Amino acid sequence: MAQLFDETLAKQVIKQRSEKSHKGNYGRILLIGGSLQFGGAIIMAAQGAVEAGAGLVSVATHSVNLTSLHARVPEAMFIDWRDPQLLKMIRLVDVVAIGPGLGTDRFAQALLNQVVVSCTSKQTVVLDASALDLLGKNKNFWPQAAGLVVLTPHQMEWQRVSGLQIDFQTDAANQAALNELAVGQPAVLVLKSHQTHIYSGQETWLNTTGNPGMATGGTGDTLTGIIAAFLGQFGSSLTSVLAAVYTHSYAGDQVFRDNYVVRPTALAEQVPLVMKKFSGQ
Amino acid sequence: MAQLFDETLAKQVIKQRSEKSHKGNYGRILLIGGSLQFGGAIIMAAQGAVEAGAGLVSVATHSVNLTSLHARVPEAMFIDWRDPQLLKMIRLVDVVAIGPGLGTDRFAQALLNQVVVSCTSKQTVVLDASALDLLGKNKNFWPQAAGLVVLTPHQMEWQRVSGLQIDFQTDAANQAALNELAVGQPAVLVLKSHQTHIYSGQETWLNTTGNPGMATGGTGDTLTGIIAAFLGQFGSSLTSVLAAVYTHSYAGDQVFRDNYVVRPTALAEQVPLVMKKFSGQ
Amino acid sequence: MAQLFDETLAKQVIKQRSEKSHKGNYGRILLIGGSLQFGGAIIMAAQGAVEAGAGLVSVATHSVNLTSLHARVPEAMFIDWRDPQLLKMIRLVDVVAIGPGLGTDRFAQALLNQVVVSCTSKQTVVLDASALDLLGKNKNFWPQAAGLVVLTPHQMEWQRVSGLQIDFQTDAANQAALNELAVGQPAVLVLKSHQTHIYSGQETWLNTTGNPGMATGGTGDTLTGIIAAFLGQFGSSLTSVLAAVYTHSYAGDQVFRDNYVVRPTALAEQVPLVMKKFSGQ
Amino acid sequence: MAQLFDETLAKQVIKQRSEKSHKGNYGRILLIGGSLQFGGAIIMAAQGAVEAGAGLVSVATHSVNLTSLHARVPEAMFIDWRDPQLLKMIRLVDVVAIGPGLGTDRFAQALLNQVVVSCTSKQTVVLDASALDLLGKNKNFWPQAAGLVVLTPHQMEWQRVSGLQIDFQTDAANQAALNELAVGQPAVLVLKSHQTHIYSGQETWLNTTGNPGMATGGTGDTLTGIIAAFLGQFGSSLTSVLAAVYTHSYAGDQVFRDNYVVRPTALAEQVPLVMKKFSGQ
Repeated sequence: MAQLFDETLAKQVIKQRSEKSHKGNYGRILLIGGSLQFGGAIIMAAQGAVEAGAGLVSVATHSVNLTSLHARVPEAMFIDWRDPQLLKMIRLVDVVAIGPGLGTDRFAQALLNQVVVSCTSKQTVVLDASALDLLGKNKNFWPQAAGLVVLTPHQMEWQRVSGLQIDFQTDAANQAALNELAVGQPAVLVLKSHQTHIYSGQETWLNTTGNPGMATGGTGDTLTGIIAAFLGQFGSSLTSVLAAVYTHSYAGDQVFRDNYVVRPTALAEQVPLVMKKFSGQ
Repeated sequence: MAQLFDETLAKQVIKQRSEKSHKGNYGRILLIGGSLQFGGAIIMAAQGAVEAGAGLVSVATHSVNLTSLHARVPEAMFIDWRDPQLLKMIRLVDVVAIGPGLGTDRFAQALLNQVVVSCTSKQTVVLDASALDLLGKNKNFWPQAAGLVVLTPHQMEWQRVSGLQIDFQTDAANQAALNELAVGQPAVLVLKSHQTHIYSGQETWLNTTGNPGMATGGTGDTLTGIIAAFLGQFGSSLTSVLAAVYTHSYAGDQVFRDNYVVRPTALAEQVPLVMKKFSGQ
Repeated sequence: MAQLFDETLAKQVIKQRSEKSHKGNYGRILLIGGSLQFGGAIIMAAQGAVEAGAGLVSVATHSVNLTSLHARVPEAMFIDWRDPQLLKMIRLVDVVAIGPGLGTDRFAQALLNQVVVSCTSKQTVVLDASALDLLGKNKNFWPQAAGLVVLTPHQMEWQRVSGLQIDFQTDAANQAALNELAVGQPAVLVLKSHQTHIYSGQETWLNTTGNPGMATGGTGDTLTGIIAAFLGQFGSSLTSVLAAVYTHSYAGDQVFRDNYVVRPTALAEQVPLVMKKFSGQ
Repeated sequence: MAQLFDETLAKQVIKQRSEKSHKGNYGRILLIGGSLQFGGAIIMAAQGAVEAGAGLVSVATHSVNLTSLHARVPEAMFIDWRDPQLLKMIRLVDVVAIGPGLGTDRFAQALLNQVVVSCTSKQTVVLDASALDLLGKNKNFWPQAAGLVVLTPHQMEWQRVSGLQIDFQTDAANQAALNELAVGQPAVLVLKSHQTHIYSGQETWLNTTGNPGMATGGTGDTLTGIIAAFLGQFGSSLTSVLAAVYTHSYAGDQVFRDNYVVRPTALAEQVPLVMKKFSGQ
């Protein structure tokens, strides 16, 4: 049986910050994605990460996206994804999220491979969007050295990764497929749909918030940024992911009250307000 | 006699979204336009489409407009309008809207021709602005294979397309001219003026909302995006177009309450609020 | 004696728009300026013109400013100021405003010269900022064929144009200097200071609004855009200029109520609200 | 004993502006920083300076940052940091702030050196971020000709400059280290932490505002801009710096009331409101 998660869990995760803390305490996040065609995706992920309180956010993307990134999110640092220094950066951060707008060409594959071969057990790797498509074609793209792996597919992407057609994506089948991929390594599957399920080990969780106004391009990119920020800030764990998913949907519900469609950028702007509420301050 | 349309019609069209839906249910839209000189037009169309709830919005434009597009509308995907992959994209989408800021040079003609020869009966084609000027000069630019054709001229553009001077643009003459162009193919004419008329087959509809604050550059570009989004989301029909026109004017009226001039970008921001209201949620 | 102008005058100028109007009724404006170093100036002028209700706004500027212009003001059309088509555009518009961020190099001089030799008696030319510095050095930069010339110097710029040191800028001296420049041609001098004076023929007007929070870079650029919009919209006359100056200061006073400094972009956002109020709708 | 500073001090510094003032009265500020990787830092500093009321703000940065700077802060003027004219500009301004996003490569060193060798006793130099790292490696980067030097390190940067490990950064040790650097020259040390201390000569001041939501990338860049604006506007003194630090933290506290994390851009938007309040108008 899927466990429901709610505000109580979010409130446990989103703690009041210590007075003595500094930005170094809230995670170093690296987001990788944003091809020529899909640059907006990584910009929305970056906004999500910044609004969700990540200490330091770096974005590795196609050089054409530098200016629009800074026009929207000057808080994010930039690295050209062709820059050899990227390898060094991958090794320095707490969380690497790869996929939003990445594309699936050879260069994208090389980037994903670089993450897979470089990451260590102290790091969390989040695979989203194109990165999942690549994983679906080649299981060597599983980051087996990472301390925690988080997958954030929608149902079609999960079909490509797991081989499970959407109608066969039962809780049992999803768990089995995830565990077969992870082989004992800590892993979380965020299976996005109108009722997002989260799987990890033998646990299944069901998100009870969210709305159909969020059915628009970019909602998932924003979620990826928020998840990365929560992992960097509140610890690398299933509960951080659950709280991130809940916060994202809850913020979307706030926007949906007055808006027919939930623009991802509007959703992201709600996140600091929602987190404040949950933190009990 | 022209039929008046009002909130009732908009409410019938703008349905509450099904809980089980995803972005793929709300239309794939391709907007083509934005030359070096008129890049803002396609950006405003893109904002209109995103705010009006299109599931996925792609923009084919001059490469110089990539960054300003993403700085304003990161939700939109980009394709350089010189990219040969554009042909493939034209074939994949539900709605193609071409014209805002397109220009009328040889390359613009080639783009319009590509749409005309590639579109199929499952697709809707919206012709706006420069695309109408081109159609006025060459009737081969009529997309005869499209399932539905929507034209959105102002009176001078319609004169160029139909040959009818503004004083002679009576309902009967407009209907006849449209039907002569369409030759039995489903088509809708949105004839923009201070009292926008919509024609289709033997029907004539008159918009009762709108205001003179909307008499400013960009208002029409925003409308094109909204129409495309409605067609992709609520079905390819006259009623979707009527609802889009009504929503656009109604949103303009909201802004006009407090503002002497209605900036198109301000109008677009009202659209999700207006649609929410009409959806009865 | 200087005449004071107030809300009454602004209310007379800012009429309710006719229901039957379209964007072509509200003026074609061309703004020329924005070098590599001072691109923000022409962007702020463009925002001023759009917010103040100009029907169509084109911006001729250095090509590097295209993207930031559209990121902020997609309503504006763009032309590279090196494009030979600029000459044609100068001839087509109702109002040319040249100067914000123009610079004073040889190319800037060539641009100003192009305006001076191309403009006709049906057009208004507004000279601001760098254009005034150039005029100060060479009186051939006076647009003697224009139907109306408007100058918008601050006191130091006026010293360069008129040769009058700031302490000697009395009403009588300013009038005389303006009339010597204009030689019977209709001309308006907006002499910006903490108490802006407007001169035309034998008339002197004193602005009673405004505040020291407006003493920041960009305030004047925004004014230039607003003046151009008013001239294009409400007719080419002294009263249009007076109403524009009043509206600009009044909008600044609105921002100053709550803000220590009046950001020019914040001032511009107030303009449609202030104009609505004055229009009595 | 550290002296506490509060609203009273801020109110003394942030005076009502004279009616007769113009932008030239409120300081010429030059901000230098923003490499390819860290362009957002100098943009946030520029926003801070503009919102805090600087009369004229110029930004010397990598050419790739021009467009995103103007998309966010059109009020700022731009100069390519490779432009030889920069030297001239350094000599013309009242305050030079160097460091946000500067980097530490050879070119960054050359820029810092240019400031150090060009500045005069009429000018204030603010060293932040990368500029402090460079100073830590080479004491020749101390601007000994400047009329006032302000350092704004966080604790780790101060360790690099002073050699004092964080645990040994006592008030006495910090004062001694600053005075050893300054050798009698007026200098202020803003040592950023959860309890920011300010040192100058024999004085130690402790900031009592601020919150852990400000522990995010960019907060310090914004502060640098605000400090520069205050120095240019309210005089080159310790009290200007104290008031800037207080205003920055106070603005952050306003945002923190409703937001879990304080986005630096949101903080900056509060500054004109906070200054208005303190000015007693």
